[in-house]
Amino acid sequence: MRALRALWPRRLPAMAAAAAAAGGARRGPVLTAESMNPAVRRVEYAVRGPIVVRALEIEQELRQGVPKPFTEVIKANIGDAHAMGQQPITFLRQVVALCLCPELMKDPALPDDAKERARRLLAACGGQSLGSYSASPGIPLVRENVARYIERRDGVPASAGDIFLSTGASDAIVNILRLLVSGSGPSRTGVLIPIPQYPLYSAALAELEAAQVNYYLAEERCWALDVAELRRALGEGRRRCCPRVLCIINPGNPTGQVQSRECIEEVIKFAYEEKLFLMADEVYQDNIYDKDSSFHSFKKVLMEMGPPYSETVELASFHSISKGYHGECGLRSGYVEVVNLQAEVKAQLSKLVSVRLCPPVPGQVVLDAIVDPPKPGDESYERFRAEKAAVLSSLAEKARLTQEMFNRTPGIHCNPVQGAMYSFPRIDLPPRAIAAAQEKKLAPDMFFCMRLLEETGICVVPGSGFGQKEGTFHFRMTILPPTDKLKILLEKLSSFYTKFVQEFS
Amino acid sequence: MRALRALWPRRLPAMAAAAAAAGGARRGPVLTAESMNPAVRRVEYAVRGPIVVRALEIEQELRQGVPKPFTEVIKANIGDAHAMGQQPITFLRQVVALCLCPELMKDPALPDDAKERARRLLAACGGQSLGSYSASPGIPLVRENVARYIERRDGVPASAGDIFLSTGASDAIVNILRLLVSGSGPSRTGVLIPIPQYPLYSAALAELEAAQVNYYLAEERCWALDVAELRRALGEGRRRCCPRVLCIINPGNPTGQVQSRECIEEVIKFAYEEKLFLMADEVYQDNIYDKDSSFHSFKKVLMEMGPPYSETVELASFHSISKGYHGECGLRSGYVEVVNLQAEVKAQLSKLVSVRLCPPVPGQVVLDAIVDPPKPGDESYERFRAEKAAVLSSLAEKARLTQEMFNRTPGIHCNPVQGAMYSFPRIDLPPRAIAAAQEKKLAPDMFFCMRLLEETGICVVPGSGFGQKEGTFHFRMTILPPTDKLKILLEKLSSFYTKFVQEFS
Repeated sequence: MRALRALWPRRLPAMAAAAAAAGGARRGPVLTAESMNPAVRRVEYAVRGPIVVRALEIEQELRQGVPKPFTEVIKANIGDAHAMGQQPITFLRQVVALCLCPELMKDPALPDDAKERARRLLAACGGQSLGSYSASPGIPLVRENVARYIERRDGVPASAGDIFLSTGASDAIVNILRLLVSGSGPSRTGVLIPIPQYPLYSAALAELEAAQVNYYLAEERCWALDVAELRRALGEGRRRCCPRVLCIINPGNPTGQVQSRECIEEVIKFAYEEKLFLMADEVYQDNIYDKDSSFHSFKKVLMEMGPPYSETVELASFHSISKGYHGECGLRSGYVEVVNLQAEVKAQLSKLVSVRLCPPVPGQVVLDAIVDPPKPGDESYERFRAEKAAVLSSLAEKARLTQEMFNRTPGIHCNPVQGAMYSFPRIDLPPRAIAAAQEKKLAPDMFFCMRLLEETGICVVPGSGFGQKEGTFHFRMTILPPTDKLKILLEKLSSFYTKFVQEFS
Repeated sequence: MRALRALWPRRLPAMAAAAAAAGGARRGPVLTAESMNPAVRRVEYAVRGPIVVRALEIEQELRQGVPKPFTEVIKANIGDAHAMGQQPITFLRQVVALCLCPELMKDPALPDDAKERARRLLAACGGQSLGSYSASPGIPLVRENVARYIERRDGVPASAGDIFLSTGASDAIVNILRLLVSGSGPSRTGVLIPIPQYPLYSAALAELEAAQVNYYLAEERCWALDVAELRRALGEGRRRCCPRVLCIINPGNPTGQVQSRECIEEVIKFAYEEKLFLMADEVYQDNIYDKDSSFHSFKKVLMEMGPPYSETVELASFHSISKGYHGECGLRSGYVEVVNLQAEVKAQLSKLVSVRLCPPVPGQVVLDAIVDPPKPGDESYERFRAEKAAVLSSLAEKARLTQEMFNRTPGIHCNPVQGAMYSFPRIDLPPRAIAAAQEKKLAPDMFFCMRLLEETGICVVPGSGFGQKEGTFHFRMTILPPTDKLKILLEKLSSFYTKFVQEFS
């Protein structure tokens, strides 16, 4: 094909002349950066932004033999556990492999409970194949099992009819926002989001042309959410838009805090009083490391508060198979549970998801195995339990290690990583470093992170990609690398920081 | 958990009183059919619309023992091959099962070429796991193999950098439209789509608030696309919007025609002259049954036309793993190849897809096995070849059968099913049936299809869901049921039609 490409005519003069005669000679492109949808142009997504583009280039340069002061790029920019060497949970993979290739039912090496599960799931699929479209909100059996999982988690009822499976949590979050966002000018929908935030929110709001209303988490109190700050933000928002939605990320991304039950109650009361729709991003619910913290779902707290809250406050809670102890990012699966959604609106949501036909079925099957894992006595139980425990205890150890090692370095301030998969340390930057960044037209933390990448191969995301208080600087780093690698990474990063500060002092 | 639900307090008077005191007693919902995004409310998607909702209800009733004049619902509404009993292609499933569960490498029953393929694909994944996020436009190796596939198909160069993998073709189509659509009032983007169309287009345009500009296919000439009609539609569109995009579906859905090479050349010239961006939906490119037709990709014809066309006309061509001979709908995978896209716009597309992280990785892996199937001499070749040939020859037989049997019935007029997976016959409806439908506030063909469903259990989609010339009536039916079932279905449908016409004469 290389020959083909070389031979390929770049100009066919006769045809070109004919076309020129037809009057189209100076035809420019239809789609340019100027003519394209300006809302899409405004979208930013730091987790895969310029720093990651440069990291990929550097990897390419390393492969080509370009000399660097390091031998590999460590991508601590994204919560991608398997990419960092975490092994898949065996039972989940056995179930989905059996579903995809039922001739494996004959393989004596695969456990009976995985086979039994695969048979049950296949029976719930059209033509007993994962290659059939499922119902648009997901396979009914899986939705039922998600509802039972939520009931066990919360001790309050859940209904399969309120569960909509999705292509990862992102897909579900954007779909709920698509329902909620309308209007223009001062009547356009305002959405309160935390700062720092996960940039899916700002990206989706930019594209949907909704108004982003920032509320700041209190870094000095371990990134706590403060209702007085919510009230301030709401007041500010009401001067320019119509705030109707409040987004919460708990456990926090990128900030790693775990919300207290009292705080959740206050947020629900606030949403009730101010007539806000609650979106609770709870994808890190299995990732709690702090001994004094535990996960309380918004659904559970809302239901336990009783009427009028439990009967009026509209809530969408999001979960994903990408995080937790399993980390199945590549399979793209998740769900939203909707609470107190009007029947007509639920019908509209059903219609909306039907246009994209269905979420990926292999991911639905893995979700089923996650929400209904092997039980004591099942053939796979012991292996499942041990694999799960090993991942979670290692993550807890790495959360502790990250906080400890960062805080040893003067100028780096790291809150405890109570949950989720990231640290979000604040770094003091000398005025001369800030000036040097401004000269290069870069945010100061972007300047720091780019230098870090070029000199050490460590890829982290600047705080400016998540939002931060004016004049403060941060970066987000995952806690996912294997413990020995993480230690080296923390040491390298800390000593680079010290050197960087000296350089600009 | 049933007990839990019964015990659950419906009212906690003290808290309710407190909340009422707080002034929120009459708080209504935030999100209602009135307050929701009106663009989403306008979306319609007939393929999973009211008729399918009713079909699911009837299935439920059958399970509950409600007596019906039939014993099962036959869902001929959607191109879902596996749901109709078509078996998956073994090699594809072996590869993806091996990738998901690498301990199966030890299974002697699995062929070596599938193991070798799985090893190569795993090596291209982060941490050698399908659970890692891939690069946002897809695994580089798979993009390369897609480019090589296109080169073999077309005999002209293709580049991996122009290939963006997606979550089914729908996802890619909507992403390209999101880039293209902008403006409001008379300056909003107009998009030319065929009538009849696949309703993803009208749904996406409604949500994006683009202007839909209809051009009609010529039913009397086997649903041919006529440039004079394109010109008429463009003129009409220019009076109310700014038409910038021309969508083509070839082979046609729901109409089953295959475009001639001459026609494609004319369409490209038209797009060149009128400065239109071409979107070519080519997901049925492997589904050609008519001996006198063959598939010509827009890319190939465009490149062979040479400059200025080959250097200026912007084209996005879509493909999917859901159709063809493999029918892997549930895995949600596909791709778009972009041609002549400005570098800046391509960067914007890359950014846009990065917000959703990546397409499902199991689907990417199956796409790889489809675009680079076993070759003569490979262990899996013979089985692969035989399975593929069996599916395609059976589809060709069913296409012929459908056309023949429908045309035997006076009042049903069915064009040849040259390609794709559907027939779209026109039905004459007596004036009294039309009046009866109007009384029920139903489109006449919806009235017919609903009666058909209630009385025979056959689920087909009314032509009004795809669009049709005013005063004509159609339905879309897949050719996918097994041949013996399809025969019975065609007989039942034809005799129901005859009875229906008699009833209203």
